[in-house]
This record gives sequence, structure tokens and C-alpha cells, in this order.
Amino acid sequence: MISGQHFIAGQWVGEPLPENAAFNPMQNTTLPWHFAEAGMDELALVTKEAQAAFLSYRHLPANQRADFLEQIAQELEHRRDSIVHTFVQESALAEARAQMELGRTCNQLRLFASELRHPEADCVVPAMPERQPLPRPALRLRKLPLGPVVVFAASNFPLAFSVAGGDTTAALAAGCPVIVKAHNAHPATSELAAQAIAAAAANTAMPKGVFALVHARQHAFSEALIQHPAIKAVAFTGSEQLGMHFQRLIWQRPQPIPFFGELGSQNPLFVLPGYLAQQGESFAQQLAQSVLNGCGQFCTRPALVFIPAGSTTLINLLQQYFSAAPAGAMLTPKIAAHYRHGCQELLQSHAARLLAQGQGNEEGCHTLPRLFISSLACFLTKAELQNEIFGPATVLIEYETTTQLQELALQLPGQLTATLFATEQEFAAQQALLQNLELLCGRMIFAQMPTGVEVCPAMQHGGPFPASTDSRFTAVGSRSIDRFLRPVCYQNFPE
Amino acid sequence: MISGQHFIAGQWVGEPLPENAAFNPMQNTTLPWHFAEAGMDELALVTKEAQAAFLSYRHLPANQRADFLEQIAQELEHRRDSIVHTFVQESALAEARAQMELGRTCNQLRLFASELRHPEADCVVPAMPERQPLPRPALRLRKLPLGPVVVFAASNFPLAFSVAGGDTTAALAAGCPVIVKAHNAHPATSELAAQAIAAAAANTAMPKGVFALVHARQHAFSEALIQHPAIKAVAFTGSEQLGMHFQRLIWQRPQPIPFFGELGSQNPLFVLPGYLAQQGESFAQQLAQSVLNGCGQFCTRPALVFIPAGSTTLINLLQQYFSAAPAGAMLTPKIAAHYRHGCQELLQSHAARLLAQGQGNEEGCHTLPRLFISSLACFLTKAELQNEIFGPATVLIEYETTTQLQELALQLPGQLTATLFATEQEFAAQQALLQNLELLCGRMIFAQMPTGVEVCPAMQHGGPFPASTDSRFTAVGSRSIDRFLRPVCYQNFPE
Repeated sequence: MISGQHFIAGQWVGEPLPENAAFNPMQNTTLPWHFAEAGMDELALVTKEAQAAFLSYRHLPANQRADFLEQIAQELEHRRDSIVHTFVQESALAEARAQMELGRTCNQLRLFASELRHPEADCVVPAMPERQPLPRPALRLRKLPLGPVVVFAASNFPLAFSVAGGDTTAALAAGCPVIVKAHNAHPATSELAAQAIAAAAANTAMPKGVFALVHARQHAFSEALIQHPAIKAVAFTGSEQLGMHFQRLIWQRPQPIPFFGELGSQNPLFVLPGYLAQQGESFAQQLAQSVLNGCGQFCTRPALVFIPAGSTTLINLLQQYFSAAPAGAMLTPKIAAHYRHGCQELLQSHAARLLAQGQGNEEGCHTLPRLFISSLACFLTKAELQNEIFGPATVLIEYETTTQLQELALQLPGQLTATLFATEQEFAAQQALLQNLELLCGRMIFAQMPTGVEVCPAMQHGGPFPASTDSRFTAVGSRSIDRFLRPVCYQNFPE
Repeated sequence: MISGQHFIAGQWVGEPLPENAAFNPMQNTTLPWHFAEAGMDELALVTKEAQAAFLSYRHLPANQRADFLEQIAQELEHRRDSIVHTFVQESALAEARAQMELGRTCNQLRLFASELRHPEADCVVPAMPERQPLPRPALRLRKLPLGPVVVFAASNFPLAFSVAGGDTTAALAAGCPVIVKAHNAHPATSELAAQAIAAAAANTAMPKGVFALVHARQHAFSEALIQHPAIKAVAFTGSEQLGMHFQRLIWQRPQPIPFFGELGSQNPLFVLPGYLAQQGESFAQQLAQSVLNGCGQFCTRPALVFIPAGSTTLINLLQQYFSAAPAGAMLTPKIAAHYRHGCQELLQSHAARLLAQGQGNEEGCHTLPRLFISSLACFLTKAELQNEIFGPATVLIEYETTTQLQELALQLPGQLTATLFATEQEFAAQQALLQNLELLCGRMIFAQMPTGVEVCPAMQHGGPFPASTDSRFTAVGSRSIDRFLRPVCYQNFPE
């Protein structure tokens, strides 16, 4: 059922290599699926086909693109059992999560299909031939697709931000062919999703280069792909280090193209004393759940929590939650190693103290949840505390007065989200803090955990650098299509 | 009346330097106005004040920003006589042009004011607390200003794309303080426009750092300005060479920011035989006017005209127009020298033949209009023909069949505009050409010269690179405000 091949030009091609095996992080063993490795031949073919497909795909009526997206959702649902089973083996995430993510992926596809069926009207300015001193021509503004898009799938959403996920869906909806570089952490799940897209493309008679999946463990392939002249935009979810490496390569192109990098965020929570007094218990529970869920592998999990100094009840509760939490398997050995290294660095640099850690052994992909504490004074001097630690850890930062928070908000690096936990009275009194938080993030939240990201037209998933490379666009929700469109004005055109 | 000073933090400051004189290109002499030169002290002050102003200006109600913009228009009109007189002396452009450009500048300010008074509603998604499996939070999407913006004024629109021009107006409307780097070719006109903005800011009680004008002939100041952490976006109109130099500096910032470079365009015209047979005379007249008007110093003037081989009537008519045209003074000695050099290069490389040139002598800023001719075969092999020659020249390129044009359209570099001159019947038969032209430009025109750029919501002034650095945004029209805004989502916020 898993061929291990690329999907290029409507064909499954390539020879799986024994060394490119899928991996089971829960068992710390390889899986019996092997994958091909794309090289320069695949690069030439996949870009040529995407370019060719663009010339016809971009003219398809919106309804036909909508049919295609809906068919993908249906084909994913047809494969539900095998997808969920494979997802769980490759990611160590829970089956319920796999089910929910499949649902979300299909909802996304259907949301974009529905928007395609009910498009906004073009902006039209009629001619005024008699206007003085100069006549006004008739003008119509339409949005056109940019061209072939490369999507680097996220490690942490093997469905919803991978092969048939948000980036692919938005680009296909826009009229752009998509080349997905499969994430090495879930190549089999990627192939199953690509099978669904391939079936949908065949059912709806799409051009054969409209979608491609390539496997490549060597960065050289990805580097050449994003520098290829046929590619007109790149969407990436991953580390700041790799993302900015790709960004710099794109800046070196003779013709620079948009790069949408979603690079990570600490998602600070600002907790005020009155709120804590009223809601401390439920807050502690929600925070633990938000940090520990999915082994902390969400770009919106709260990694910094600013709390009033001496919040002993809260600290005790959180210590209980974190101490009781079991070791969990992270997505890959590398992600687990980064997590452990980041935690060690916090302690070795004396940036934070360990308050609690979970139960079990850290080996292979398994890591222990950790709760740290530090002070605002320390936070302002130790750069380690501003590095994202991706995983099930959070750092409580004790502050003395809310005035300190106002100043602090202006000093933090850009974030996807910033959240204020306050009573309504405290909220009303903290306008200065709220105004500063606005400058910091793409989504401001009142008294809810940031981990839920609603897929809708009002979502903004993208914040000031380094959270994203371009805070003017969102990676989630129906407006994410704007990343792949540009306006063109038609002047004096006949009907 | 001209102090020669910078306007920083609500004060006129700096010592005019004797060597920084304004220049009269028509007379080829200096003017009796001298200007200060900004250095690192001015840089520190102007950025600090813009940052401080941002924190209050961004919260002003839209109506107050609209009042400010309308006041600027009124203050410009109060100064009409001195502005027009100074504009003509510094630019060698005609008085009628100065009058029209002042009108356009004021119209732009009032258009943005009107849009501020009738804002689009925020996108709101209401809460669904009972939704299964998860409740939906209330979400509201607003657009927030990016922060202080640097505007590099254009040489060729001393009012409409300079100190109080489109970029400044859009940024101020968005809620961003603006620092204008005055163009060295019209520093006195710049000061007069800055006086109008200063008066308007005082009348409407704006924060003192909301607007600044700096004079700097040394690039080092501009280079440091766009790399300063307080600056959050840069708008630039000018050469590809300088624009890309600034772009590369911005990419080197620790926090990259948007750079909107409008870098030039050849604005190809594609003329079909049937149209020429019917409308050849009026076409020749319009083309000559479009190329020669304002000494060809428009980013939308047609510099490449693809015509059927052997269009002798057209060629004869154009030769008459170009031969009869007088020498004209360009904006600066440097622009004039570039123009002459570009024309020489065409001839020396045998990329084109000279068909006609205007009357008079080329000296100082005065240059002669020129009409060149070449063939499609030559065009495809000579890179010189794809370099923009800014000024009153155009190159006729003879083609054999319209099928050749289809292929060609895919090979041209990105353009602001592309225009098809065809009969309605030819238009209907050229869908393949039109589809290819769509990929090439930001504005597609049917049977009208591209030089008029309507300021309205349906305008797109910005095309694929190298016409612009970001084809997803427009530099003209009400949507140009989007360059300086980013969306922020408010989740679960109390009213």
C-alpha cells in the first residue's frame, strides 16, 4: 500500500532506498517502509510539469477547483483507517488526535471550496469618458495566482499542515500548482495523503502537474528547488534556523519570490493577580493541559508564563500536574534531542530553576515534561529564556508589578500569540499593557489558552518576525489564500 | 521662505551647506537655496521621535487622521503659487503639469481621508460556546499599522510621489509616522510640501514626530536609516540599481521589514495589424505624445512597441513626430546622462537603428527625443533592449506573426503594464496572447496608452519583479494603504 515513491507528473516514480526508512518514535524503531530520494532529474521534471500545469490550471473556473478540493477531502475520508493507523505509527501522537486532525484537514479543504463557490466580486471602477480634465477609463481588479508553489510540510501536523494541509489547500484554491516536499518524519502518511490528492485529481481531470510529492532527506534538493525559476512562492513551517537558511537562499535568486516562513513562537501568557485569585485552579489545569497536550508540539503552546511573584498556590498545583505527567514520545529523535538540550541549557546557564519534571525515562524520542521558574530580572538578562524550547516545557517568570509587564511587552521578540489572563476589571485597567501586546503578536487573546487555532476568515496565524517572515499574511484560515495571489488591473477591456 | 533645514520633531533644524544647492535643470544653473545634510545625530533624533509618535498616532480615531490629511491638502492649496513656481524651477516640467500634479496630490489626500471616514467593517466571527467537539471563541480581525515608515521620494513626481505624495499619504492614513528622505532634485519643493504638512499637523494637534523631512545627499545616511530598528517599512521609487541596493541592506537587518520598491518598467505595447490599418494615425499621435510628454519621465511610458514588420505608414508618421520634437530638459544632469548613455548603448551594440531624433542640442540636462527600430530576432538576443532607458525614447520592434508575440510575452521581464492595441475582432482571437500578458504585468490595457494611472480602488501599480519588489501590493490608489498594515486577531475580547 506504501510504494515509497515520489508522485510527479501524475505518476508514482523513483526507487525506494533502504536507508530512507520511516521511523516509529514510540517504539524507537524503523518501520517497514522505505522511500525514494529526489535528485536533480526529479527536480527538472517536477518543476517543468508544475509550470506546464500552471498555464491551464490557473484558467479553470473556480467551481472546478472547488470540486477538486472537495474530492480530496472525500478521498482522504475513504482512506481514514489506513491514514489514522499510519499517522499514529509515524508520529507517536494519539489516535484521537489523528482522527481530529483528519477532520480538520477535510474541513479546511471544504472551507476553501465553499469560498471558491462564493467568490468576492471584483473591484470595478466604471469609465467616465466625459470627465474633465481627463476621461476615466474602465478598470477592473482581479486576483491572479502567482504560479507554482513549494510547500515544506510541518513535522507537528502530519495531516493539517502537511501534504493535503492548509498551505497546499490555499495554494490549490488560488490556482497555483503545488509541489510538496514530504516531511521526513511522516513519509508514509504523506504518501497516503498524496494518493488521495492523486485520485481526486484524476477524478476531476486536473492537469497532471497540478500536484507533486517529493521525498528528499538531503537539503541540497530543497535548496535547488526553492531557487528554481519556475517556483513563484514557498510556504514553510519549521525552525527559525532552517527557515532563515531557506529565506536567505530565496533572497539570492535573480527574481526574489515570497517566502512564508512560520518559524516558532513562545506565546507568552500574562497572568494578573486578581484573575489568579479567582481562577487559579482552573488556570493551572488549563495551562498544564495546554503545555502537555501532544507532547507540547504546537507552535502556539505557552512557553513563557508571567505570574505575580509568590504565587505559591499556582506553583504547587502546576508542580503536581507536571510531576504526575508521564514521559511522552516526541515526533523525531532530533526534536527530542533539541528539547533536552534546550532544557539543559536553561539550567546550566542559571536562567531558570527546575520546579518539576514528569515520570519515566528520557530515551530515544521519549522526553519528560518540565516546569521551570525564573524572575523577570533574570529573563531580561538571559538570552536563553528567549529561545523557543519546542516541547512539553514552560517557564514561569515571576514579576513584581504589572507596570513591569508593560515595559517587558515592548522588549519581547515577535510572537504568534500573546494572552492576557485578567479579571474584567483588571482588563479595563490594563489598556497600556494591551496596547503594547498588540505590537508584539498576530493574535491577542483574553483569558483563553492560545493552543486552539480556529480555521476561519478572522484568524491571524502569523506574527512579527521571528514568529513569521511576513506578518501581513496568515498561514491559517480562509485569508491564507492571499499569500498566493497578486492583483492585476484590467483597463478598458471589452466584456 | 526656504530655510534649507530638516523638519524633525516638529522643528526646523540643521545648517544649510553651501555645496548642497538646489538646481535648475532648464537653465543648467544652481538655484539660490541651500540645504542641510543629515548625519547620525539627525538619524538618532528622527527615528526616536517617529517611534514615540507611533505609540500615540496609531491610536488616534480614523476621523482625526482624516482631518490631518484633509488639512494637508488645504495647506498645499494655500501654498499653490509658491509650490508651482518652485516645482517648475527645480524640475523643468511645465507649469500646467505642476498645477495638475498639485491637484492630484490633494485628491489623493482627500481620497484616503474619505476612506478613513468610511472604514470597512472588521471581520467578526462570533463565539459558539456549545459547538462540538470544541467551542468556538469569538474572533475579530483588525488591521494595525506596521510602525514608522521611510519614504524615498520619486524624482519624477515632485509632488504626487514625493513629500506629501501617495506613499506618505497611504502610510499616514494607515497610522504610521513617516520620515521622508527629500529627493535631491527638488529639495525646495520638498520643503514647501513639508511646511504644508507641518502646518496641518500643528492645526490638528498631531504628535510632533508624526512626520519628518530630512535632506541627505550622502547614501550613508539613507543606508543607516533603513537599517534602523525603529523603521518598520520602506517605500522607494527609483532605479533598479539603487532600489536593489537598499533591498539587500534591508535583507541584512536582524529583523527584515517590507520594502516596496517601484523600480521601473518598459511597458510594452503589442500592436496588431488590423488595429494599425484602422487606427494607425491616431495611434502614432498618441504614442508620440505618451513617449514625449514630460520628457518621457514616467514609469509607465511605453519604451517597447511591437509592430507588424513593414508598417511603413506608422514608421513615417512617428519619424515626423520625433524629428519635429524639440530637445527637452530632464530632471537632473545624472538622469540626462543616463538617458544619453542608454541611447548610445543601443546603437553601439547594434541592438537597434535610429529612425529619428528631435531638434536642438544635447547639453546639460537637455536631451533629444529618439525613435529606434529593431527586429524581434534582434530583441531576443540583445540584452540592451531589455534595459529600461528612462526618458523620451522608444524602440519599435518588428514582428512577423502574432504567434511570435505569444512566445515573447513569456520571455519579457516583469512590467508595470502591458498593452494590446487590437480591433475587437483581433482581441477576441488573441486569448492566448492575453493570457500570457497577464503573467507579465500588474496592469493590462486594451487600446489605451499606459501613461495615465488612475488613483482609485481598482488600480494596480506594481508588477512582477523587476518592475516592483512585491507585486502583491500597489503603489497607487486606495489599496496602497495595505502596504503599511498587518492583521491582528482579537480572541475572546470583552467589548
